[in-house]
Amino acid sequence: MSRIAPIYPADRVTLREVGLRDGLQLVKTWPGTGDKAEWLRREHAAGVRHFEVGSFLPAATFPQFCDIEEVIAALAGLEGGHSAALALNERGAAAAFASQVNEIVCVVSATDAHSQANMRRSRAEAVALVRRIVEMRDAAGSGKIINVGLAMALGCSISGAVDPQDVIRLAGECLEAGADIVGIADTIGCAGPRQVGHLAAGMERLFGERPFIVHLHDTRGMGIANAAAALDSGARVLDASLGGLGGCPFAPGATGNVVFEDLVYLCETKGFPTGIDLDGLRRAREIAETSMRGEAFHGALARAGPPGNMPWQARL
Amino acid sequence: MSRIAPIYPADRVTLREVGLRDGLQLVKTWPGTGDKAEWLRREHAAGVRHFEVGSFLPAATFPQFCDIEEVIAALAGLEGGHSAALALNERGAAAAFASQVNEIVCVVSATDAHSQANMRRSRAEAVALVRRIVEMRDAAGSGKIINVGLAMALGCSISGAVDPQDVIRLAGECLEAGADIVGIADTIGCAGPRQVGHLAAGMERLFGERPFIVHLHDTRGMGIANAAAALDSGARVLDASLGGLGGCPFAPGATGNVVFEDLVYLCETKGFPTGIDLDGLRRAREIAETSMRGEAFHGALARAGPPGNMPWQARL
Repeated sequence: MSRIAPIYPADRVTLREVGLRDGLQLVKTWPGTGDKAEWLRREHAAGVRHFEVGSFLPAATFPQFCDIEEVIAALAGLEGGHSAALALNERGAAAAFASQVNEIVCVVSATDAHSQANMRRSRAEAVALVRRIVEMRDAAGSGKIINVGLAMALGCSISGAVDPQDVIRLAGECLEAGADIVGIADTIGCAGPRQVGHLAAGMERLFGERPFIVHLHDTRGMGIANAAAALDSGARVLDASLGGLGGCPFAPGATGNVVFEDLVYLCETKGFPTGIDLDGLRRAREIAETSMRGEAFHGALARAGPPGNMPWQARL
Repeated sequence: MSRIAPIYPADRVTLREVGLRDGLQLVKTWPGTGDKAEWLRREHAAGVRHFEVGSFLPAATFPQFCDIEEVIAALAGLEGGHSAALALNERGAAAAFASQVNEIVCVVSATDAHSQANMRRSRAEAVALVRRIVEMRDAAGSGKIINVGLAMALGCSISGAVDPQDVIRLAGECLEAGADIVGIADTIGCAGPRQVGHLAAGMERLFGERPFIVHLHDTRGMGIANAAAALDSGARVLDASLGGLGGCPFAPGATGNVVFEDLVYLCETKGFPTGIDLDGLRRAREIAETSMRGEAFHGALARAGPPGNMPWQARL
């Protein structure tokens, strides 16, 4: 817990930019290393500090992440920048430990059906992998944070509805396995705010003062409403991506992650200061858009801007 | 109150389609009368019953509403169809009383500055006009509902922030003037869910069992989150438009009203049955889109559809 307190303070909202990881998983074109570094610089200049920058995966299969070491290094050069990257197996974890990355993200599916289909392992095996990665970390005397994302935690592309008690129990097993922080993901973007609020409240009861992450997709347009419900239920760490980058393989044409810019507006108007400047996000979006011309960028703030004649930002 | 109980029951959610009125105010092209009637038929077949169908305004200046009598007649032929139309002065009200329309919508600005700029009258004069329209109604022995929409109730394009106490006081004056139902409008789409929830809670205290309307714009992407907050604070009547039709003159390129289809998904997942079928809305959207090819239609459900392998609809 002391490991994450400086990175994810419990008393304020932290927004994690996942566009460079989740947003690049399904795209046909992606930014070159220089553009990724400039994207990070601009979004960092806007006040963002937490970034998922890629996955430790074979470069032959996932060329969009082949420059992950350089992207991590670029972020390491920015004051307070915190990098996270996915490691989906021990090979990926070994690469992550050999890198400068600050946080290793493991994925555990909330359903056995999805876990088997996607990872060819049961949920119990996935939790056991988390435990081994924690052991690798501790054996190496590393300070890296181990983050476990619970995929399909609000509905599964294979099994359908997911029992929240199952998710909470799985989150507890991940904590017990040594995870520093755990996230609940609405991977297919099917949840509404009542369900999100209910699951987040269960997480809050389990985690107490310890923060947890809520990762939402806007597939059915509920992203911002779900984020509001999560905040109301005690969530203080939320994932999003600039322009809502990131498709969903199960819903062609659907938007991806919650739109970062709009999430900033939500947080500020709800009284949670983010320290993030919307004009700065607009400059970051420019580099993302120009380096990925084939992709759709979403979001209302980027179009309309904040209102000019009234206060909307929370007091720091 | 007995006048509105059958139309706006207090114990369930009612969604009002305002696309044929608010959605057509700023567009360059609009559907012909036959297409408007087909739009109404299809959306009625999907389960929608409440429609704002236009404004009683001079046809020379607002040709999109020149066929309002025929559109009202088309809806009158559909079982349970309830038509509403704007009347912004006594001439418009006289035309409305001479028509078959079921509900006359008056607009009172929440700020004097906007009221003067938009209507060349003070708020007090606007409330006095409501009183005269109610008297016209009662003198004629008419059963038409008088609905007062409070424009700029959550922020004003001219004055900026709006004091919610002012809005509640104004809503009370409208009730006292004889309005059957009152709505609060986020005309410029600047509010967040905390503010909407707070104002809706104030309305609920004032109105008790009597329903009030919440009219939201999605200009800053908060529309669905704001609707969720309104429902949480007791609102039971919400405006929306198919595909989010309806621009905002103060935010070029911004989306308009809350997207009807997405609002249905929100309500259902929050446990409020709407009786509205999303497939039917898709068929209605087809006619709206093909008859207005220059306009942008928004919304996530129209792209992604509801999840196919889990329950999401509230039980009736």
